[in-house]
Amino acid sequence: FEKSRSKVVEVAREAKTLGRDDPRRIIHSLKVGLAITLVSMFYYFDTLYQGFGISAMWAVITVVVVFEFSVGATLGKGLNRGIATFLAGFLGVGAHRLASLSTERSEPILLGLSVFVLAAAVTFLRFFPKMKARYDYGLLIFMLTFCLVCVSGYRDDEVLDIAHQRLSTILIGGAAAVLICIFICPVWAGSDLHNLIATNLEHLGNFQEGFGDEYFIKSGDNKSSLQGYKSVLNSKSTEESLANFAKWEPRHGRFKYRHPWDQYLKIGTLTRQCAYRIEALNNYLDSEIQAPLEIRVKIQESCTKMSSESSYALKELALAIRTMIRPSTVNAHIANSKIAAINVKSLLKTGLWQDTDLMDGNTNCHSCFNTYRCCRLH
Amino acid sequence: FEKSRSKVVEVAREAKTLGRDDPRRIIHSLKVGLAITLVSMFYYFDTLYQGFGISAMWAVITVVVVFEFSVGATLGKGLNRGIATFLAGFLGVGAHRLASLSTERSEPILLGLSVFVLAAAVTFLRFFPKMKARYDYGLLIFMLTFCLVCVSGYRDDEVLDIAHQRLSTILIGGAAAVLICIFICPVWAGSDLHNLIATNLEHLGNFQEGFGDEYFIKSGDNKSSLQGYKSVLNSKSTEESLANFAKWEPRHGRFKYRHPWDQYLKIGTLTRQCAYRIEALNNYLDSEIQAPLEIRVKIQESCTKMSSESSYALKELALAIRTMIRPSTVNAHIANSKIAAINVKSLLKTGLWQDTDLMDGNTNCHSCFNTYRCCRLH
Repeated sequence: FEKSRSKVVEVAREAKTLGRDDPRRIIHSLKVGLAITLVSMFYYFDTLYQGFGISAMWAVITVVVVFEFSVGATLGKGLNRGIATFLAGFLGVGAHRLASLSTERSEPILLGLSVFVLAAAVTFLRFFPKMKARYDYGLLIFMLTFCLVCVSGYRDDEVLDIAHQRLSTILIGGAAAVLICIFICPVWAGSDLHNLIATNLEHLGNFQEGFGDEYFIKSGDNKSSLQGYKSVLNSKSTEESLANFAKWEPRHGRFKYRHPWDQYLKIGTLTRQCAYRIEALNNYLDSEIQAPLEIRVKIQESCTKMSSESSYALKELALAIRTMIRPSTVNAHIANSKIAAINVKSLLKTGLWQDTDLMDGNTNCHSCFNTYRCCRLH
Repeated sequence: FEKSRSKVVEVAREAKTLGRDDPRRIIHSLKVGLAITLVSMFYYFDTLYQGFGISAMWAVITVVVVFEFSVGATLGKGLNRGIATFLAGFLGVGAHRLASLSTERSEPILLGLSVFVLAAAVTFLRFFPKMKARYDYGLLIFMLTFCLVCVSGYRDDEVLDIAHQRLSTILIGGAAAVLICIFICPVWAGSDLHNLIATNLEHLGNFQEGFGDEYFIKSGDNKSSLQGYKSVLNSKSTEESLANFAKWEPRHGRFKYRHPWDQYLKIGTLTRQCAYRIEALNNYLDSEIQAPLEIRVKIQESCTKMSSESSYALKELALAIRTMIRPSTVNAHIANSKIAAINVKSLLKTGLWQDTDLMDGNTNCHSCFNTYRCCRLH
């Protein structure tokens, strides 16, 4: 008993954390409840129920399956489901008509064959990367509806009625999900992507900012503020799915319909490359092998300057992305950082192994900036 | 016309590549077609159709939705669907009974309220990372079935019949999908994960093997053989989903039921850390800043030795994972590599900046080995 109680307390604490980290999760849950309750009204009111009967079920199913966290994901799934059902219903009725022209014996064989061929073809189509990214759900529903219409047509002569009712209830369910998703506290995948890209650049900037102090002074307190960049290392799949969702979204806020979402992915890739180098740099901090003290004192000033100027540049880029205002002093910071890097190099002239990492970090910073510029010009 | 023809040729070529890269994709497509055709037999034979009637639809739907590429994914979805439908049906019937005890006016209100609360609660539960990883689909189906049973019970007094028919057809569809998936050319997510981890280690080994030549000799031919490690950088999400699927799989081949799949994720994480350093190392190759020639000649032998010994160690680890036989000479290779690293260091004594990267690569190699050992002992 004691154990299950502590389990409940633990779950409650996790739920609280989840809700506090992103209150939109709580709102989303309530929105889903609202949409399902609204759609189930079909059952409660006689006038509504007369029209659809048992097909009203499909409206409830559609809401449950289509309602996703972000507007883009919901719209994408809703459109996929609606269009796929329409096309497959059309094709299924056609196949049924064709098969019913033949003899009674060969009809099930023809139907079975067409179901087999279409199911296999569509399943293979789902392996195409481009299809998978945007139309995976649509292909699934296409296959599903075709099989249902085609096969149940063998038993029920009112195929057209079935197809029609199924389509209209799915449209109603989909519309309810999409409208509630868009008009009650919408969560835009595009804005999330926009913020994620900016936050990731900030994480890199924070590392560069703290690196000098950490390396030369060893403040001794925990380096947790420097570890933010680690989340950047594995951000690829999140960014890609957000960009996919964002492409379904209509104009909203500062984002137009054809906002160049792919450019965000390019900035994301460059940010990640920069993060890989920072990961290597971070290993110097923990490494047992360190440069002797006298060298460190010698390069401390230039080195700290180099890293703090990089930090300014990265943070200004992040701010520029966030506010969508062209940055003004980034080039100056990068130039300063380069001068500092050249200083470090000349101080290390007696040495052999150059500070390639930091230089590369700088180059990268530069290429980030270039992409950003392309993005703005687009 | 010419354009659409070239488009078709392009798609056909892509399909051919997809099929040749992994012929299991073609087999999977045929398996899906077969399963759906088999299940739709329910409609064609009178004796079968008598029992289920229109509910036979759910068997087709279940096959389409549950049939996934790997056995683990199919089993996971099938079990999730089956168990969730059972539990939700049970709960839905209960809620319906409770509500029907009240007055006729308050019944729809009670039902609506219970649908709202349950839908919101389950949607929130789907945000828990642990739930999302393994039971996301089950939670969706739970919500779906509960709403359907609860709401359609208001119109139809044969709730128990509906729930029972739905459950049995889902069980039949799920069983068909799972059996065909397991017994006709099965694709095991566990084996895929096993091979992926070994291949990733091999990619790192290939880089280390080629690095010496590339850095000191600059053979000039394209470095494509060295670029294999890049796929390792972003392998995290693939590995995690494979491990999730693998946990659903029964004993197969050399893998027991409770094979320590999480250990693979640990090796994967270490491999990725190693890949980040190799990415930094790879940048030296492209960098404009290079050590002067006289230094390079001086360190060439030791440096090449260090990297080739690391390569031997990594490749032997990969082979050991693949064959599940404890490696014998890995420690010797790592020791050799360390000696070579110490040599490089002493050669660079006049220099200041140590070859931290390569040393770290070595350390990492070592920790990979340790994890592997844990995994074997488990």
